[in-house]
This record gives sequence, C-alpha cells and structure tokens, in this order.
Amino acid sequence: MKKISIIFLLLFGGVAVQGQDDYFNRTVRVKEYLEPAIPHPDQQKEAESKLEKLNKKPNILIILIDDMGYGDIGVYGGGTAIGAPTPNMNKLANEGLRLTSAYAQPTCTPTRAALMTGRIPARSGLTRPTLTGENPKVNPWESENTAAKILSENGYKTAISGKWHLGETKGSMPNEVGYDEWLGFAAVQSEYSQFVNEWIYPDLINKPERLAAVKAMVNEAVVKGKKGEENKEVAPITTIEELSKVDQIFADYSEDFIRRAVEEDQPFYLIHSFSKVHNDNYVSEEFKGKSPAAFPYKDAIMEVDDIVGRLTQLLEELDIDENTFVFLTSDNGPNEDTWPDGGFTPFRGGKGTTWEGGVRVPGIAYWKGMIEPGRISDGLFDLCDLFNTSIALAGAYDKIPSSNYIDGVDQTSFLLAGEGDSNRNAVFMYSETNFMAARWMEYKMHMKVFETSAPRKNLDQSVVQQTGMAPWVYNLYVSPKEQVSTGHRYFEWGLPVMLGYIRDHLATYQKYPMKDIGLKKPGQ
Amino acid sequence: MKKISIIFLLLFGGVAVQGQDDYFNRTVRVKEYLEPAIPHPDQQKEAESKLEKLNKKPNILIILIDDMGYGDIGVYGGGTAIGAPTPNMNKLANEGLRLTSAYAQPTCTPTRAALMTGRIPARSGLTRPTLTGENPKVNPWESENTAAKILSENGYKTAISGKWHLGETKGSMPNEVGYDEWLGFAAVQSEYSQFVNEWIYPDLINKPERLAAVKAMVNEAVVKGKKGEENKEVAPITTIEELSKVDQIFADYSEDFIRRAVEEDQPFYLIHSFSKVHNDNYVSEEFKGKSPAAFPYKDAIMEVDDIVGRLTQLLEELDIDENTFVFLTSDNGPNEDTWPDGGFTPFRGGKGTTWEGGVRVPGIAYWKGMIEPGRISDGLFDLCDLFNTSIALAGAYDKIPSSNYIDGVDQTSFLLAGEGDSNRNAVFMYSETNFMAARWMEYKMHMKVFETSAPRKNLDQSVVQQTGMAPWVYNLYVSPKEQVSTGHRYFEWGLPVMLGYIRDHLATYQKYPMKDIGLKKPGQ
Repeated sequence: MKKISIIFLLLFGGVAVQGQDDYFNRTVRVKEYLEPAIPHPDQQKEAESKLEKLNKKPNILIILIDDMGYGDIGVYGGGTAIGAPTPNMNKLANEGLRLTSAYAQPTCTPTRAALMTGRIPARSGLTRPTLTGENPKVNPWESENTAAKILSENGYKTAISGKWHLGETKGSMPNEVGYDEWLGFAAVQSEYSQFVNEWIYPDLINKPERLAAVKAMVNEAVVKGKKGEENKEVAPITTIEELSKVDQIFADYSEDFIRRAVEEDQPFYLIHSFSKVHNDNYVSEEFKGKSPAAFPYKDAIMEVDDIVGRLTQLLEELDIDENTFVFLTSDNGPNEDTWPDGGFTPFRGGKGTTWEGGVRVPGIAYWKGMIEPGRISDGLFDLCDLFNTSIALAGAYDKIPSSNYIDGVDQTSFLLAGEGDSNRNAVFMYSETNFMAARWMEYKMHMKVFETSAPRKNLDQSVVQQTGMAPWVYNLYVSPKEQVSTGHRYFEWGLPVMLGYIRDHLATYQKYPMKDIGLKKPGQ
Repeated sequence: MKKISIIFLLLFGGVAVQGQDDYFNRTVRVKEYLEPAIPHPDQQKEAESKLEKLNKKPNILIILIDDMGYGDIGVYGGGTAIGAPTPNMNKLANEGLRLTSAYAQPTCTPTRAALMTGRIPARSGLTRPTLTGENPKVNPWESENTAAKILSENGYKTAISGKWHLGETKGSMPNEVGYDEWLGFAAVQSEYSQFVNEWIYPDLINKPERLAAVKAMVNEAVVKGKKGEENKEVAPITTIEELSKVDQIFADYSEDFIRRAVEEDQPFYLIHSFSKVHNDNYVSEEFKGKSPAAFPYKDAIMEVDDIVGRLTQLLEELDIDENTFVFLTSDNGPNEDTWPDGGFTPFRGGKGTTWEGGVRVPGIAYWKGMIEPGRISDGLFDLCDLFNTSIALAGAYDKIPSSNYIDGVDQTSFLLAGEGDSNRNAVFMYSETNFMAARWMEYKMHMKVFETSAPRKNLDQSVVQQTGMAPWVYNLYVSPKEQVSTGHRYFEWGLPVMLGYIRDHLATYQKYPMKDIGLKKPGQ
C-alpha cells in the first residue's frame, strides 16, 4: 500500500498539496484519533436545537439485513418490479430519509465490525468473514470498543438480536464485547442449512463421516446470553423447519427487548440483525410462496419486510417513535454466487467486490418528527458512521476512548437538518488489507479493481488487480454502472485532489497501524 | 423467421398444443385482425362503471421523452441518486400508476410508429430510424391508420408537438397522416446539433464543402402545420442558442393547444414529443448547470421534468385533470453510444438492443380520480397498446379499420381498475424484421441476441446472433439483469408454452404480411 501512495505522490503529490484551496480542503480534524469531518455550523445548530427540544436520550434501532441488494427495496428500483413488493421498507423510506450513497464493506464480518467499532476493518483485524471453527491467533475484541459498550456504560440498555458472525471463541461473543444481552447465533445462515438440504449439499449430506466432522464445528442452536453469564441454548437448528423459524424468533426477542426497555424506562441501543436474506433462505410457513416471484429469496424479502413493519409499528404502539432513531441497511451487496438465492443491484459487481454493486447499500434513516419525511440525499454515508452518530445521539461523544483511530464521522447534523449535507468527505474502500478505491462527491477512484468479466461473477474467480499508471475514475452520475471511466479527459483536475485525500488517509496508519489477528490467508 | 419457428415446432410444437390448459390459454381473439387479449370481466366492469360516471370523452395526453433511460426517473431508481432529481415525474408516478414492465421498440422511429398505429413495425415498414434525406420507395403511411386519424374523425382535436421522425417526404408529415395540427421538426435533435458544435463534429464543421452538402439535406427550422395546409417555418434552428430553445417552443405550443381545445370544448388527443433527452442536449438558459451532476444530459432531464410539471399543472389549472388520461414514457432505452450525453438503465444493454436495457421503458399512467394513486404494477404493457387504449377511451373502438392487423390490446381495464391485471399475454420484440425475443409473465425468451460484450456497448459493434439449439430464457425476477439464464433446469415446463405463443404470433404474418418500404439495409 505504501508503494502505491509513493508512486502517486511522485506523480501528483506536490500538486495535491499546492493546488488545494478551501473548496478542496474543508475537513477539520478535531482530535488526532478522529477522522476529520466537514463542519456545517448552520445544520449543526438546527440539529442541536431539535435534540434540545427532545430533551431525552433517544433510543437507537439499527436494522441490518444480510446480503440484501441495493436494488431489492421498491423505492430503490426493485420491489414489485422484481417480484417481491416491500411496502413496509418503502413506507419507512417515504416517511424518512433515503440515502442513495450509503456504503458498507464488501463482505459481512468487516461491515459489522466497522459499524460496531467505527473503524475500517484493517484496523480491527476483522478483514474478512470469520469461518466456523476458526480461531484467530489474537482476539480482535481485546483492543476494540463497540458502540454498545460505550452506550452500556452511559445509561443505555444494549442488545443484539440475530446473526453475530464476529467470532465464536471465548471473549468474542456479544455479551463479552459490550452488549448487555443478546439472542441469536454466532455463525451464518448457510452454516446451518448445509446440514439439511441434500439438493444443495449432496456431497456433504450423503457422506456421513464428512457430515459428522463438519457438524462437530458448528453449534446448531439459537443461543441467548447476558453480560457476565454463560450463553444458553434456546432453540435447536437441526432441520429445515427449525431453520425457517429463526428470524421469527429474533423478531420476537427484539420486540420483547424493546418492551422491557420501555418498561424499565431506559433508553435502548438495539441491532436487529436478520439471518435473512443470506443464503440459503427458508421462510417461515406463512411466507412460503407469498411473493409474486415465488422463489425462496423473494419470499424471504417479504418476511424481512413484514418484520420491519412489526418493529416500526411497535415503536408507534409504545409511543416511542418520536424518540427512536431507526436506521435500516444491508451489510454488503447481493451475492451473485448463490443465484437464484441472491439479490439485485443496478450496479456493477456484487458482494465481495469494491465495485458499487459490492459496497453501495440501502440506507434509510427514520425518526418521526426529527427527520424530514420524503427526503432523498446522495450525501456520502459510511456504515462506520453509525458508531459515531449513535454515540453522539446518546450524548457520550467525549467517552470515545482515544486509544483507537476512529474512521467514522458524526452524521447527526446531516440526518437531522432539513436539508443537511454529509459531514463525510470521502469513503475509502478495502478488500481485506488491500486499499482498493475511494469515493469523493460523485467520483469514484479505483487503485485496484476486481476482475469480473463474466456476466455471472463468481467470488472464487474474482482477482484483485492493480490498475496501471493511473487510477481508474468513474463519474457515478454519468456512469452509475462504472462502464465508462473518465480518464484524464474529464477528471484531470480532480486527480491530485483525490490522491491527496488518499495520501492523508493512508498516513493515519503510521500512528494507528493495521492489526493482524492471524486469520488464514489464501495459500497459507 | 419461418425457419426458426419450424425448428422449434419440430422440437416442442406438439407439446405446445397438447400441453395447454386454461391457465396457459387464456387469451381470446375477438376479431381476426385484433391481437388476442386476456379477458378480465370483473375489472372490465369496474373500469366501465368509472367511465360511465365520467360521462364524457376524456382528453388524452401522451408525453414521449426521447432516449430517456428506464432508470433516469427518481421513482425508477435514478433521480437524486444519479445527479438529476425529477420531482414532477416522481409526483406523477406517486399520484398515479407506475408500470415496471412497459416495453418500447429498441429504437425511436419503430416505437413511434407502433404507438401511433398499434402495429409491430415490421407490419408498417417503419422498422428502423428514418434518416434525413432518405426516401423510402413506398410511403408507409398510405396503408396505415394512426390513432390521431381515427380520433380526429370521431370528435377529437388532435395534435403532435415536438419531434416527429416518421418521415420527411410528401405524404408522411403529421398533418398528412391524421393530426389536425402540429408544431415541431421532422428529423432528430442530433441532425441539427451536428452543424453547430465543432467539439463534437470537427470533421464536418471544419470542412465547408462537406458541411454544405449535409446541410442541404436538413430543413433547419421548427415548422408548424394544419391538416390540408402547407407547413410553415416558425423558428430557425441554426445556432446552439436556437437549438437550446426548441423544447420550450414545443411546451408553449402544447399549452396553447390544450387551452384552445378547452375553449372550443373539444376533447383532445395530444402527443407531446420531447426533443430531449436525445443527444446532443442543449438546455435553455435557466437550466444550464442546474442539475447536481451539471452535465448537459442531466440538466436536460431537469428541463424535461420541469415541462412535465408545467403540462400537468395546466390540466389542474384548467380543471381538466379529472378528465384527462396522461401517459408518460420514453421511446427506447438509453443510448450508450453517446456517453456522457446518455441515460441510465439498471438492465443489460441499451438503445438498439432487445436486452431489457434497450426496450424496457418507464410507463406512468396518471388520471386524477380514475387511476388509483400510488399503484405499482408489473403487468405487461407494450407501447403499441396506447393505440387501442386511446381509441377505446374515446369510445371509437369499432372504428378501427379491419384492413390492418393490430398488435396492440386495449389496456383500459388494466389501468383503471384498482387492482387491474394486464390484458396482454406476451410482448414480442424485434430488431427491424428479425424476431428476437418474447416476454411472458416474468420470463424472457431470446431466439436471437445482440452481442454486447464490452462494458460500453457501441451500437455499431452490435451484432444479431442466432441462439443455439434452444432459446435463452431469463427469469426477470431472479435475474433482472439477464445475467443467469434458467436453461432447461428451471424453465423446461415453460418452453413449449412460450414457443406456442411465438408460433401463433408468427402465424399472423400469413394473412397480414410484413411491409417492405424499401429502406436501405446494411451492405446494400
């Protein structure tokens, strides 16, 4: 990575420094360990005045859907058009703020880690999906602070419901890293379904010894736990029938948690983390064949949508919708490997790549009375900003420890001001520890790209490749599908500017280096 | 074409006939020269009752945008997300019916011909864009009936405002083929702009003799005409400044026409046919740089959106919105050749191809009090259905001459019933006289495909290729981007059904053959 920055600094570096004026240099670094952000004094005031009027600590509900595509929700161009209407998510968007440039990491574990720690996965070490039975040499959580932990220490009741997938070993479970309680499973949907569907996994299921050996690595149960207590099994996951119920179990738990928090008059921070729509999708009985498409993925979208409706309706029913910040998103782009059990993105590439199809995700912010209904914004939002924003909303921003570099920025004023602009200057995109690309305004610069030549991209055929002398730049307004790069003709003015931002970003690793937790790498 | 159908009939034909039960054989052919449609008695009654209550002949306003992509409008996934908000078109969709499976022909002239005649272009002979200076050997209009002609003969005041592009020779102008009046130009935007922009056309503009020779073929003016009268020039188009004003001139004319029709208390049929967003886009002064993207195409989208707002607001102002059927669409997919002066589709391919990107277009039906607000439907709609639907709304269905085969179907009940289903069974797709593909329910079958391997498809590199032994089928719900064909595994049950529909469709050419108007073909 250092090599890249040196090559480009030689070419453009000097210009980057000398050519910057105020327009290109608007971010302010308040503290050394905090990512610089663009100050917006007017919208900051507007947001503060709204929060003052509220005059209490708001609840925070983050709804995280697994592997759902940017295009799956109706208001993002999918829904009815692709055989699975999403009335509840549409409503949430139409009555809230719909972000069109929200970014996740290209895969599951990294996104979750970033969202919870506010840090680029290269810093936490959680750079790729952890695998069942895998013991990283270093427990990444020993030197990480989750938003849940900080909020729990500052008056919040914190929980995660559903999929965890951020470690399965001692010291890495939710109730050990800051959540007061949780219910869910540690692995990923497909690690359960691989034992039950002989049409998809005949080579595993029809070989008893092989099956037994793999089963020994997975805890086939929904578990439940509290801080300071051991996790307990609450429901087995050994059949398709049991598997088909997990998202209903998670939904029931989330509802129960919210009710208890309200009864106890404590503000809550809840991540509702769906198992769906990760493959393999098995919906609960009432959703089977319910979608016009009648494929499991589509039925699963409708079950997810229904549960989103249940959760938001509960907020209304408990009269806490005006005091609850809701954010709905997906952890990465749709998985193109698992067709037909996968989602839709209008963009190039899918899960596992840093093309827009892999990292651009839906982002719906809803807060009755606080977020302007019907707003649509193309302002940049990185899911790691949810760390900062949640802590800011809880009034605990000065409790963020200075030991770790925080890549997130506080987006409160962007979301709450009627016409707020994003406080984020650029989004930096990685594949594991490879710095791949950056987005700034409508421009996307690739330093490395994934080769995805086939119409159906297979993850195992994807190769990270270095671009040539110059990075590839796309104007995402005039080439949303990253088809025609602007090259030097249209964007020469912007090259030194973006390379300057990238250089400054990479420079943060000098004081705050990457963390290697000893995950196996290809070839090892 | 006959060869294709014979090959497949040998393979599947028998099954197609024997395997059909009522579910697969729901269409009814009322008259030999009318395309069979699916009867829906309940929704038919509901629509009839609405029309009875209205108790007058409704106005019909068709808004046709040139080369706009399916994805350019906000509610179709574009708008703010791609640097050009479309508040007025969003509003029209949100207060009306948004169709997600409306189909045009792959290029301009064929779509316009189909929309006006209700016929597949192979039957009218208008199978590709007519070129300036081109004289077809046969005037196609001599044996065609436009909806405008039928409506004009049945009490309507009819007009077209804007681009024509359906012939420039004697006998093929709007006021000669059924329109009471018109204002616009006969050619296409780029045929004017090629004379004025030396940055795009240096090899033409910098060579005076060549320029003069080409100019001699084009009438550089906006013209105006009435039935039975000669067309008159009303404004020159010889500079960028003049060119930038044409869509405002068209909008003024449309407004004036609507006002006059209301004053004269006559129902009207008006096609408002934008010059924009066909390349090269030059916006009028107030829209220059107005879009967040600040590219001419995006500014043009905002000018179009503004004019759509003006027209719909006028209906409200004149208190005729409850008596006017509005339909907004585009004539084909976005032109990928003209980047960055081109639009956005989430689908595969673009203008000129029969991939979804070439033929799937926005379709917004709005009619206050008559069409349920906020409806979204994936029901099939072919723009040639506008011929039948317009005539049905005018109560003149029995005036459709029996001399020509009509490929359109009446979609009145689909549009007007609260939860109406499409009356169309399948959409048949052509490239000139090549039968290419068909859509039925969510399935798309390709008999021939366009080779579009490059991320940036160039029209002049596109090649029509015959598929192999079996056609390619995509389930557009689970592969909206036509990436993964279902092959024989997922759709073997449907192959004989679709092949049966195609066979029946091709059989109509026996009595109603294709018409050859003598357009030059490649290689001639």
